[in-house]
Amino acid sequence: MPELRRDPIVGRWVVLAPERGERPSDFPPVQVGTARNTCPFCPGRESMTPPEVYAERPDGMRDDGEGWSVRVVSNKYPALQIEGDLDPKSDGVYRSMRGVGAHEVIIESPDHSANLASLPDDQIAAVARAARERILDLTGDRRFRYIQVFKNFGAEAGATMEHGHTQLIATPTVPRRLDEELGGFALHERANGGCILCSMIEQERASQGRILIESDRFLAFEPFAPRFPYETWIVPTYHEGAYETSSDDDLLAFAQILGRTLRAIHGALDSPPYNFVLHTAPINEPGRPPLFHWHLEIMPKLTKVAGFEWGTGFYINSVPPEDAAGVLRSHLDI
Amino acid sequence: MPELRRDPIVGRWVVLAPERGERPSDFPPVQVGTARNTCPFCPGRESMTPPEVYAERPDGMRDDGEGWSVRVVSNKYPALQIEGDLDPKSDGVYRSMRGVGAHEVIIESPDHSANLASLPDDQIAAVARAARERILDLTGDRRFRYIQVFKNFGAEAGATMEHGHTQLIATPTVPRRLDEELGGFALHERANGGCILCSMIEQERASQGRILIESDRFLAFEPFAPRFPYETWIVPTYHEGAYETSSDDDLLAFAQILGRTLRAIHGALDSPPYNFVLHTAPINEPGRPPLFHWHLEIMPKLTKVAGFEWGTGFYINSVPPEDAAGVLRSHLDI
Repeated sequence: MPELRRDPIVGRWVVLAPERGERPSDFPPVQVGTARNTCPFCPGRESMTPPEVYAERPDGMRDDGEGWSVRVVSNKYPALQIEGDLDPKSDGVYRSMRGVGAHEVIIESPDHSANLASLPDDQIAAVARAARERILDLTGDRRFRYIQVFKNFGAEAGATMEHGHTQLIATPTVPRRLDEELGGFALHERANGGCILCSMIEQERASQGRILIESDRFLAFEPFAPRFPYETWIVPTYHEGAYETSSDDDLLAFAQILGRTLRAIHGALDSPPYNFVLHTAPINEPGRPPLFHWHLEIMPKLTKVAGFEWGTGFYINSVPPEDAAGVLRSHLDI
Repeated sequence: MPELRRDPIVGRWVVLAPERGERPSDFPPVQVGTARNTCPFCPGRESMTPPEVYAERPDGMRDDGEGWSVRVVSNKYPALQIEGDLDPKSDGVYRSMRGVGAHEVIIESPDHSANLASLPDDQIAAVARAARERILDLTGDRRFRYIQVFKNFGAEAGATMEHGHTQLIATPTVPRRLDEELGGFALHERANGGCILCSMIEQERASQGRILIESDRFLAFEPFAPRFPYETWIVPTYHEGAYETSSDDDLLAFAQILGRTLRAIHGALDSPPYNFVLHTAPINEPGRPPLFHWHLEIMPKLTKVAGFEWGTGFYINSVPPEDAAGVLRSHLDI
């Protein structure tokens, strides 16, 4: 059973999950191209994964069989486990609890070698719907306070499986990164009224220099203070805190801008390793939901995070976002 | 001139330093072993670096010549630059200032292929003294509020030069990571009285399970909630906030425990890439100095930081610190 431990000075939680040290990887030890012969995410090998918790497949076809277009299963080597209670403990200055949560894998398509940038928009939309449905379902578990949807693309970004997948982890506390963002939204609301991200959208539209794509309902742009070269955010231009309230139409529009953005990143930067993280409102909030505005942060991993960043929390970035926007714009739709 | 930009939501500062994109690296493109033929940190090539700001060398020998045992120079490709004022600007929700600061390199020894783990203790102590002297000198510049001493060892940890070196960067604001730690110290003091790190030391001594080395004046231990496998902290067992108050005797004792710790890490983990960061009290504090206790955090880089960590600020670690302490203890002094 994983354990959650809290750093007594800064309150940062760490997941100790010794079992994850034993999980297999299909790269780099396996040759690219041979992983497909044994890949548990490929159609026909559904029995190699834990049972599915969600799938899109034609009516009448059976669960855990072939025919799916998107499939969600529990992670076989979970960072957090679904059973039991938190059972918080304290010992002097130290606090810990059992590593209760959920860790699931969204298999993005049946095609082993596809990735989000190569999939058609309606298939990306199916992945976006799967994330929404899993958030809605996991929200029913009152132990959970947040659901982090994220993607690791490429070994350098922490991926251990080649077959295209996105992940989600439900956590029993609101993560500190979210807490920081919520604090920023609250501070701006008190000082200026309104939503800080709505203000940012307005300012980006006025200046244009960092915008990559503006569509009917979404904006893709390079943030003013990016941690990483070519860091790109996608935000709904309408104010909405919770991703899971999105309609199918919203998610198709989101998939369209996400696909175009990822294709520009793949084209401009030679399919770089990247992470993306979805930031959405906490779930099962007691009382009034806090002010928030959901968004996706895409972070190509072209440089190493080094001592200065670890020590200070400052980031050094050698590519100004205005330059990055220009480069990515020149790779749109080609 | 680099620019500091503030993320308007979470207040995180980012250093935009386009010039650093052009800096040379002597690995991996250069073959290991050939870098020494052109290395600007080697004796005899002092003119290839900016002028030295500190060195230990026998009396009577000239600055910027040979004969030094430790030498500190400005970084030729600085993240922050020493000239000018901050000139803070704001534009709607966005804030920025000029990238004013200092970025220096401590060349740890004349020996190109030495590293801190292979150097004798008195040479490590010379590096520790150089860091102290530079902090003391830079504190005289009232624009600076913090000095981050850090080391990147190995390309995977962000090093771009092979010749053993430690770095320091003086920043015009107190970094958020330090602010978080200062907040934790203040919270504990208000709630319980006393220093949280002194309490941790007491608790570690009582339980022993995470201790690697206990010497007369220092403790090396695996923290209760480590972000990374084999993360190791070194702390003075006496309460002191500011590293730069250390006497030569203190720093020799620090060098001894640092050397033993690094040799155990090199031995147990096959000379892994690692970062270390020194956390010490802010400088030029207006008013009463805040409660703090200086310490060094050593972070081997054996795993990738991935989407979950970026999204949440939680860390997943597959090696419990009690296990890591056992492994490292078995590699002490061999």
